[in-house]
Amino acid sequence: MPSVSNKGKHMPESPIRKLVPYAEKAYAAKKTVYHLNIGQPDIKSPEIAMEAVAHHNLEILAYTRSEGSQEYREKIAKYYKKNNIPVEANDLIVTTGGSEALLFAMGSIADADDEIIIPEPFYANYNGFATASDVKIVPVISKIEDNFALPPISEFEKLITPKTKAILICNPGNPTGYLYSKEEIQTLAEIVKKHDLFLVADEVYREFTYDGSKHYSILEEESLAEHGIIIDSVSKRYSMCGARIGCLVSKNKQVISTALKFAQARLSPPTFAQIASEAALQTPQSYFDEVITEYQDRRNTLVAALKAIPGVIVGEPKGAFYCIVQLPVKNSDKFAQWLLEEFDDNGETIMVAPAAGFYSSPGVGLNQVRIAYVLKKESLIRAVEILKIALEKYND
Amino acid sequence: MPSVSNKGKHMPESPIRKLVPYAEKAYAAKKTVYHLNIGQPDIKSPEIAMEAVAHHNLEILAYTRSEGSQEYREKIAKYYKKNNIPVEANDLIVTTGGSEALLFAMGSIADADDEIIIPEPFYANYNGFATASDVKIVPVISKIEDNFALPPISEFEKLITPKTKAILICNPGNPTGYLYSKEEIQTLAEIVKKHDLFLVADEVYREFTYDGSKHYSILEEESLAEHGIIIDSVSKRYSMCGARIGCLVSKNKQVISTALKFAQARLSPPTFAQIASEAALQTPQSYFDEVITEYQDRRNTLVAALKAIPGVIVGEPKGAFYCIVQLPVKNSDKFAQWLLEEFDDNGETIMVAPAAGFYSSPGVGLNQVRIAYVLKKESLIRAVEILKIALEKYND
Repeated sequence: MPSVSNKGKHMPESPIRKLVPYAEKAYAAKKTVYHLNIGQPDIKSPEIAMEAVAHHNLEILAYTRSEGSQEYREKIAKYYKKNNIPVEANDLIVTTGGSEALLFAMGSIADADDEIIIPEPFYANYNGFATASDVKIVPVISKIEDNFALPPISEFEKLITPKTKAILICNPGNPTGYLYSKEEIQTLAEIVKKHDLFLVADEVYREFTYDGSKHYSILEEESLAEHGIIIDSVSKRYSMCGARIGCLVSKNKQVISTALKFAQARLSPPTFAQIASEAALQTPQSYFDEVITEYQDRRNTLVAALKAIPGVIVGEPKGAFYCIVQLPVKNSDKFAQWLLEEFDDNGETIMVAPAAGFYSSPGVGLNQVRIAYVLKKESLIRAVEILKIALEKYND
Repeated sequence: MPSVSNKGKHMPESPIRKLVPYAEKAYAAKKTVYHLNIGQPDIKSPEIAMEAVAHHNLEILAYTRSEGSQEYREKIAKYYKKNNIPVEANDLIVTTGGSEALLFAMGSIADADDEIIIPEPFYANYNGFATASDVKIVPVISKIEDNFALPPISEFEKLITPKTKAILICNPGNPTGYLYSKEEIQTLAEIVKKHDLFLVADEVYREFTYDGSKHYSILEEESLAEHGIIIDSVSKRYSMCGARIGCLVSKNKQVISTALKFAQARLSPPTFAQIASEAALQTPQSYFDEVITEYQDRRNTLVAALKAIPGVIVGEPKGAFYCIVQLPVKNSDKFAQWLLEEFDDNGETIMVAPAAGFYSSPGVGLNQVRIAYVLKKESLIRAVEILKIALEKYND
């Protein structure tokens, strides 16, 4: 029998997926499970987007241009300008989700065995895209006690080799919720310019910043014009994860023309989803105001409740809708399984994402979990109460 | 300034894309251009599919499962059974177009520098997916004088090395229109079993077979259960190229569990498009009967008209909606440019796809073009008339 590739064998399984069999046991046992593990927002998608698709009048569901429809690209460029990001339609390629933008970026800038430095913990699927692209991820550890701020330049410089092609950040961060400051972005700019690297920034949570803090995009930094590549997506912005529309943005013309060749090979991004995404750009500011107020409120509730649990350490997330939480357990993988398989409080339990899957360095983050606050406040309060009771019982 | 990857530099540009600037000149000169170059059918998508999307009642456009929604997968399995392909829902993964199924297949079975043998001429984007996957395509030439039938086994065996992982075919063929016989599939089965290879079959044109001939799928061949991987798509079947829904099918459980990891990394296929594709499975047979009658009629018209031009050689396409045409010119790239840039007949000209881009061996197919019959019969007749006049003038 022919065998699958080594690449295929090394493709990581999603850290959450591993828990699914245990979650299924919990459902079978009729437990109610509070899902703190997922990144699928419970927020409604903008009506204007959903209605645009309902009112489509296509007779032939045809390809669009490989780089996305011109109208949509021009409107995205306007959106960026409104966000102080000075790009034109020609500086961006519409992709099938942020996922594909990441794949195109890796393929466009790195060859087999080249290296990309990423502050960890990082979005687990970066591992999958790197494996698929034959690229090596080199992690630089950011620490919960520093609230996951940018590690010192010296830590990056220790890791830079002739094979290093880029630094990749997620800002605001999944899974940390950390929001890089303007100064940190400028620090990164200095490193990438000094070593002639690309700076790839996954900015899909751009809108989700709290306490009045503002996101500073890498392309607001003029000196990064030739070095910066933004990865973007409508998934979180408009709670349209199932659209599968994102984009890759760069002022570096060689990057765009190269990414375009990857885009041409797969013909076009999905047409209905582009209709929804183009309409979504008309979403009124009030939608975001409400959503951000809601997330900020949830974060406040969640973080305060977590901090009240003895032995629990949690950072101060300033953006996105995740936080990394350190628990008084040795192995959060086993604890997460136990929560689903063996524990309940009045028939209720919680599902969390063990954080080890968000680290590339082995053995790091074993006592941490990622919690997403995509549930209503009352559910979050009850979920943290369950966590507290569970920890008492688990450590007994 | 940081530089793009070698992989990116080697990503092929679409053979049609290169002609776009010349096409734009033709439009600017107010010429009418008959597009014989494209694979976008002019056939309407099934109403039932387009209406299903119009009547969606989603409030949150959420992710589906990475392998596609369970309902949809079960319905696809039923479709296959109706087509004598004995597969279950668990034997398939819903992908973002046939394109993504090809990427997943290559990643799942081949490592960097591994080889896949493909009869050429072949679908040009196989080059792009291979480059993106660091895989080497090894072409085996099929000939216009044999109507692009399967090359002899001995030609394959000459090319098999320890790095060979698979043979890839497109059946019915783009760009050849060739339909492999049951005997040819069985011949391929013998080769892949003998050398422990995978047989990957791009069967996206399954329905489009003419003259009463019937498509024979690789998975109808029971002995290929562990070796066969089908690449499929709704794009051509339902004239829904813009949906971006396909699937990867295999009875080999290791292949499916490996491809699933690639699928998980990119989260999910597009949701609206799955709604359309699931509904499209209810398309009545009468839709296909009409479409196939229409294509067969066009093919007859096109091939007869082409054969009447002195010096033109054309095969007997039995499926899909393309044919490779050999012209009495030295370089069809230059001729295709000339058609757009310098020629017109009463303000009208044609755009064809130079065939060199469908060959991997350098210097082969230089006097050939691919013609797609996705235009109405009257347009095809006029287009071939223009070709005839153009050839006379060009060769004068």
